[in-house]
Amino acid sequence: MHRTKVRVVEDALDANNTIARANRDDFDRHGVGVVNLMSAPGAGKTTLLERALDGLPGDVRAGVLEGDVAGSFDADRLSLLHIPVAQLNTGNGFGGECHLDANMVRTALPSLPLADLDLLVIENVGNLVCPAEFRVGEDARIMVCSVTEGEDKPLKYPLMFRACELVLINKIDLLPHLDADVDRLLANLDAVNPGVARMLVSARTGEGVDAFREWLTAVPARVGAAA
Amino acid sequence: MHRTKVRVVEDALDANNTIARANRDDFDRHGVGVVNLMSAPGAGKTTLLERALDGLPGDVRAGVLEGDVAGSFDADRLSLLHIPVAQLNTGNGFGGECHLDANMVRTALPSLPLADLDLLVIENVGNLVCPAEFRVGEDARIMVCSVTEGEDKPLKYPLMFRACELVLINKIDLLPHLDADVDRLLANLDAVNPGVARMLVSARTGEGVDAFREWLTAVPARVGAAA
Repeated sequence: MHRTKVRVVEDALDANNTIARANRDDFDRHGVGVVNLMSAPGAGKTTLLERALDGLPGDVRAGVLEGDVAGSFDADRLSLLHIPVAQLNTGNGFGGECHLDANMVRTALPSLPLADLDLLVIENVGNLVCPAEFRVGEDARIMVCSVTEGEDKPLKYPLMFRACELVLINKIDLLPHLDADVDRLLANLDAVNPGVARMLVSARTGEGVDAFREWLTAVPARVGAAA
Repeated sequence: MHRTKVRVVEDALDANNTIARANRDDFDRHGVGVVNLMSAPGAGKTTLLERALDGLPGDVRAGVLEGDVAGSFDADRLSLLHIPVAQLNTGNGFGGECHLDANMVRTALPSLPLADLDLLVIENVGNLVCPAEFRVGEDARIMVCSVTEGEDKPLKYPLMFRACELVLINKIDLLPHLDADVDRLLANLDAVNPGVARMLVSARTGEGVDAFREWLTAVPARVGAAA
C-alpha cells in the first residue's frame, strides 16, 4: 500500500491553543519564564509560593497571576512579598469557571509588568480535573499533591498527574499523623507519569522548599536557552 | 404603571434540570431518599461513607452511585459493605467531565436496584466548583470539607458551601497538628451559608460519625413525609 504524507495541522481549530501561543509569544518577547501551578483546593499552593518566592536570587524578578473563582485572599497574601501580583476571578465575567484558560490569562496580562519580570507563576483554580486540559502559554506545569489527599489520587486524576513536569508532594510534616503511604503514592505517580520529577516538601516547616526554589530559579534560564 | 402578571417558566430550557426532575420522579416512585455527596479531592468522602453506611438500621437499605473521572477504587472499597454500588466514570463517554450531571446519573440508574433501596448516596467527582452547579435529582446535598484544606475555603468556593444542606468538617483528628482555626472556618461558613447544619467528624477515628449516620438514616423518612 502506498501511503501519502499527510500534513496534520495540529489543533488548528482549538481557540484555546491559538491564544496560548499568543501568550507564549508575549512571554518570550519579554524573556519571562512561566509556570502553571495546579492542585486540588487546599493542597498548599499559596503557602508554598510564599515560602519559595521569598528568597529568590535578586536576578530572578518574580510575579504572580492568581486564579480563583472568588475573592483575592491568596493575592493579598502574596502581595506582602512586594512583588507584582494580579488577581483573576473566574466568577466575574467568566461564568464561575473551574479552571484558567488561555483567554482568561490573556485578559489579565495587561495587569502585569511583563517587561520587568523573569518568572511568572500562574496559580490556577484549585481543581484536579479541568486545569490540566487548558494550556495557557506556560513553559512548565507544576502540580501540588498533599499527602492528606490519599495515595490513590494519581490513579483517580491521571490527566493532571500526567500533564506536569514537576510534582510537589506537600504537607509531609503531617505524615506521622496519617495512614498515608508515600511510597505507594509515588508508585501510583510512576504508574501514570513514569519518572516525572518530584519533590517531598512541607510548606509549613520549609522542608524541601529550597529545592523547589532552585527549580523555579532555573525556569527563566531554561527558557532563555531554548529561545 | 400597570404590571401584568408574568408566569415564569422556571428553567424551561435547562436540559439538566429537566432530566434531574425525571430522576427525582423515579426516586420518588421507588421511595428512595437520595443525597449528593460532594467535596474536594481527598477530603474523605469514601472513608466517611465506609464508616457511616456500616451500621445503618436494617430498615434503611442503602446503595451508592460512585462518580469518578477514572477507575473504580472507591466503588471497590464500598462494595465490601455488601450493598449495591454502581460506578460511573466521567472519563468514558462523558469527555472526562469534572462533575456529575443529571444525564450521567440517569444513564447509571439501570445499574442500581432502586426498588430495593431506601437511601441512595451519589458520591460526586472530587471538585469544589462544578458539582454544585448541577442538580441530579437529589433530596439533599452534603459537602465534606477537610480541616487540612484551610479555613478560607467557604470564601473561595462560596457556591459549593451555599448549595448544601449539611457540611461535614472532616479530619478533626488532625487539628492538633495543623495551624487551621476551626472557629474561623465555621465563621467563614456562616458568612456564605448562615446557620447551615454542620458536623465535626473524623472518618479515621469515627468521632462524629454516629451523628452523620443518624442524619442519613432520617433522609428516607423525610422524603416519605414530604411525598
